[in-house]
Parts: sequence; structure tokens; C-alpha cells
Amino acid sequence: MDALVDAALSGQKRAIARLMTIVENGGPEAREVIARLYPHTGQAHVIGITGPPGSGKSTLVNQMAGEYRRRGMTVGVIAVDPSSPFSGGALLGDRVRMRSLGGDPGVFVRSMASRGSLGGLARSTTNMVRVLDACGFQRILLETVGAGQSEVEIARAAHTTIVTQVPGMGDDIQMLKAGILEIADLFVVNKADLEGADRTVGFLKASLDLQSTEGEGATEAAHWRPPVIKTVATTGAGVSLAIDEIERHVAYWQHSDRVRAERVRVAAELEAILRDDLLQAALAHVGEQYHRLVDRLLAREVDPYSAAREITRQIIPDESSTANS
Amino acid sequence: MDALVDAALSGQKRAIARLMTIVENGGPEAREVIARLYPHTGQAHVIGITGPPGSGKSTLVNQMAGEYRRRGMTVGVIAVDPSSPFSGGALLGDRVRMRSLGGDPGVFVRSMASRGSLGGLARSTTNMVRVLDACGFQRILLETVGAGQSEVEIARAAHTTIVTQVPGMGDDIQMLKAGILEIADLFVVNKADLEGADRTVGFLKASLDLQSTEGEGATEAAHWRPPVIKTVATTGAGVSLAIDEIERHVAYWQHSDRVRAERVRVAAELEAILRDDLLQAALAHVGEQYHRLVDRLLAREVDPYSAAREITRQIIPDESSTANS
Repeated sequence: MDALVDAALSGQKRAIARLMTIVENGGPEAREVIARLYPHTGQAHVIGITGPPGSGKSTLVNQMAGEYRRRGMTVGVIAVDPSSPFSGGALLGDRVRMRSLGGDPGVFVRSMASRGSLGGLARSTTNMVRVLDACGFQRILLETVGAGQSEVEIARAAHTTIVTQVPGMGDDIQMLKAGILEIADLFVVNKADLEGADRTVGFLKASLDLQSTEGEGATEAAHWRPPVIKTVATTGAGVSLAIDEIERHVAYWQHSDRVRAERVRVAAELEAILRDDLLQAALAHVGEQYHRLVDRLLAREVDPYSAAREITRQIIPDESSTANS
Repeated sequence: MDALVDAALSGQKRAIARLMTIVENGGPEAREVIARLYPHTGQAHVIGITGPPGSGKSTLVNQMAGEYRRRGMTVGVIAVDPSSPFSGGALLGDRVRMRSLGGDPGVFVRSMASRGSLGGLARSTTNMVRVLDACGFQRILLETVGAGQSEVEIARAAHTTIVTQVPGMGDDIQMLKAGILEIADLFVVNKADLEGADRTVGFLKASLDLQSTEGEGATEAAHWRPPVIKTVATTGAGVSLAIDEIERHVAYWQHSDRVRAERVRVAAELEAILRDDLLQAALAHVGEQYHRLVDRLLAREVDPYSAAREITRQIIPDESSTANS
């Protein structure tokens, strides 16, 4: 393990890839890897890219990685790809991407399938970002499909969040419903050579205007107004401008939001791990009693909250038992 | 509280509505309501309806509720509606729905906004279903927007899951990626008067054929093959047939899947509550030490897993500390 971690920290791609696999799989070995890498983390800026299927995110991410390389920065790419038994999408994606970027030691590309629970996926993603961060990649592009709740959870790992749109899609209230105005630091209207690009840009700007006059969004919006950029990822048009705006947000984030955001992020991760660890320790502690409780629940002799309290009180007798549901 | 619960159990709609609000808001009062209602639950069959925006789910659900009423069964409807600061969708939805169904004592309709965390939403939904179950509604229609991970989580509250599609949408691999083949007990191709309905039906059936020949899905698929039904919700065409197929699944579920599925469901809910309760009790127990741990995490003097272990070990000293990440 020591040799593997040292090799990864010195930039050897095969070692990095092995660590990525270990943390993706989770378990005690993943914890050991993270414990070793943790002192080396905190340098990278993580850029989340999300948006509907078909908005050209993968191509855009490839172009952005290329532009960062031209600017002399190292780039990690993690694409979270929902897969089904049919697609095998993650592996295929890696191969396609590797053709254009793989020979360059300053780029590391990894796709991961979004199997398993949402909480588990968010945890794995955070740890995979951490591996690339520790191994010295300066910008990490984290691509997720869709813009639903699951992507919002994953996007929490990002310092800058880009939401992609395409002309004609989402020029209505449905898009606003997904809460993407709240998470976007930058909008990219990709495929901007298609008809209606300016209308989509106008709609997004009007929505941002509307939001900034409302109470809820005002505190954040007063400081950073998300720019709306047009790109044509297939030709690279607009990508350099997008990177300029991202870097403007990097500077903004480092000087304003960083300390508060990092504290929230670190505390949230600690609490997520604690939830799992405490549950596992509690179940081990009560042993067979757990199965008897489930039996009593099925017989409706006890309700779920009272059952939980029976276990919690045994472990932490002085708890006040007024937890929120 | 006793009077309120008694009034709700006797079918008074205002009392039911108040209990729904209490459990939606969560907290100690919600726990008390659930504790009182729990012995009365376990009678209703819960039918989840999910699918992309614009597939006519609300109209379909209204028609299904009407058909159940014609068959002499009582129906609860819960629509989980993602809302934004702009839409106020949930309340508007209730009013529109109430016009067609509200005068009937055998129907109860409630919309809820999908604010807050995913875990919290799934919990609230489970408890709102429970209120209607305890109050004697025989079928509960649980409508969610979209077919992403968040909807899959909410759909766990359902015994029968219907996935809606419309002609032309999703006739490709993107749809399969969302994992809906795995969750659907019944497919409804709504707006079947539009061109391409038969192609969509054919695509779904071919996908189901493909799935049933693969190893992963084979065990379930051997017992229940999801039927694919065409409906035109605006006219009611096909709705009666859809209800026939749902009832066929109700019978299947009661005779095959019920015991195992209920045990999994009950255990999952108990564990979710335990996670929250144990975390809250642990944080109360360690007090200020928690903030010092976050400080040390920010300074990278400790990694998140070791920090979690410090807390867990204080509370449950004999834990083996080999929890999965």
C-alpha cells in the first residue's frame, strides 16, 4: 500500500488508476487510502458539469480539458454515468475519451457507473476526486448526467458548478423546477449554432433576474451572478471564454466562499460517515435483538420510531429522544 | 391529539388533512402521530406512478382514481411535485384536482412539494402514505415526477410501480439508462393516440425480452412480466384495462412477494431512522468535541474516517471499526 500510494503521488497513472478503483469499491481499504492521501488534498479546484442528456456534456468536458492543458494546467476528469445492464456505458466512455486525451501525462480520465445507492455514489465520487486532488491535478472536471436531485447531491463535491443547456430544451418552467438556478455558478448553452440559442440565453438571464429580486436567492446572488455562455463544443467555439469565466469564479470562490463552504462540506461528510459507522456499530451491539424488533414491527406491535428509540437508548442512555424525523 | 387521530380514523377529511400536514413537517409530533396510527396500517395497496414530465401522469392518476371509485374502492392520491420558488405548483395542483374528485368522501388528494433533502422527502412520503392507509383508503396512488434516482427512492414506498411513457419519447438507450425497466411492474404508454405509440410499445416489449434473457433480472422476471398498456388519459381510453393489470399485480404481490418485500421495507425504514437518531444522540453526547474535530479536519490533521472513528469508539467502545465506506 505504501509503494502504491507513493507511486500515485509521484504521478504514475497506473497507480492512480488502482487507487481510484479501491476508493470506488469502498470498504476498509478505501478508508486506508483516504487516510493516507488526506494530508495531500485541498489543492485542486473541482468543477461540476451537469445538464440534460444530449446537451453535449462529454464533448464539452473534453474541450475544456484540452483548453486547460493549453493553459499549462493539469486536469482530472471524472464522468459519473448512469448505466444499465445493457449499456456498459462507463467503459466505452473511457475508451472514447482516452483516444483524444489519454497520451498526455497531465490528464487523467475516469468514468464511473452510477450503480448502488445515491449516498454511496456521492461518497465514492468525493473520494475519487480526493485521489486526483492528492495526486496533483489542479482542475478536476466532474461530469454528471441529468439535473435531478441525485446530480445535485453529487454536485456538492464541486466548488464551481456548470449547468449545460441546449437551444429549445428547457425554455420553460419545467427546467426551473429542477432547482438548477440555485446550483449553477455558470450556464453554458451548448450547440449554440442551433436555432433558438439566443432565446435560451435570454430565458436563462431573465430567470436569473427574477431570482435575484426574490428574497431567498438574494444573499448569494448579490455576490456572484452566474454568467451565461454560448458554446459549440464540437468545434470548440466559446470554450476558452467559458474557461475564463470558470477561472473568474475560482478567484471569487477562493476569496469569498471558501472557508464557509469547506466547513459545511467537511462537516457534512463527517456526519454521513458517522451515520453509517454508528448504525453498523449499534447493529453489532444489539445483535439478535434487531431481528426481533423487525418481527415486532411486522406484527405492528411497535412503530418504527419507538423501535429506533429502543436501540438508541441502549447505546446512548442520556439521549433526549427528541430527534427530528 | 387523541381526538384528532380518532376523527381521522373515522374518515373526517379535515382531520386527515391535519395529520398529513403534521407528518409532512416531521419532528416529534409526526413521530407521535405515526406511533398512534401504526397499528392501523398495512391494509392499503400503494401504487407508484412515475415517468417523465409531460407524459400526462396527473390526468392518468385522476382517471385511475375515478375508475377505482366506480369499482367501489376508496382511493388516496399523493402527488410529489418538485417545486421552485416560482411555481407554487403543489397548491395549484391540489385545487385543480379537487375540482374533479374533491366532493367524494371515498377520495383524498394531497400534493406535496419536493423541497428538502431526498432522505427527508422519502420519509415524509412514507408517513403520508401511512396516514391514508390507517384511515382506510384501500388504494393509494403515489405520483412522482421524473424517473431519476430520487423517484426510485420514493417509489420504494410503492407495492406496484407504474412507469408512464409517451410515443416518441425515450425510444432509445437513454431511457434504459435510468433503470426504469428494473422498477416497473407495469408500463403505460399514455397519449397513445399520438403517432408512434405502437413503436414505443414494441420498444418496451423488446427491452423487456432483452432483460429477461440476462442473468440479473431473470429471477424476478420469471415470475412477473410487466405488461405494456396503451392509454389516452384525456378520454379515459385504456384506463380500465390498466386497472385490471394493476389488480392482477396486487394479487401476484400478495401471494408471492409480500412477506419478503415487507421485511426489507420495514428494516430499511428502521435503519434510516436509526441513522438519524444515533447521529443526533452522538453529537449531543460529544458536544464541543465535534467542532474541534471539524477544525482538525479543515487543518487536515485528521482524515474523515479516523475522525468518525474517534466519535464512534467513545459511544460504542467495542465496535470493530471495519465499517464499509
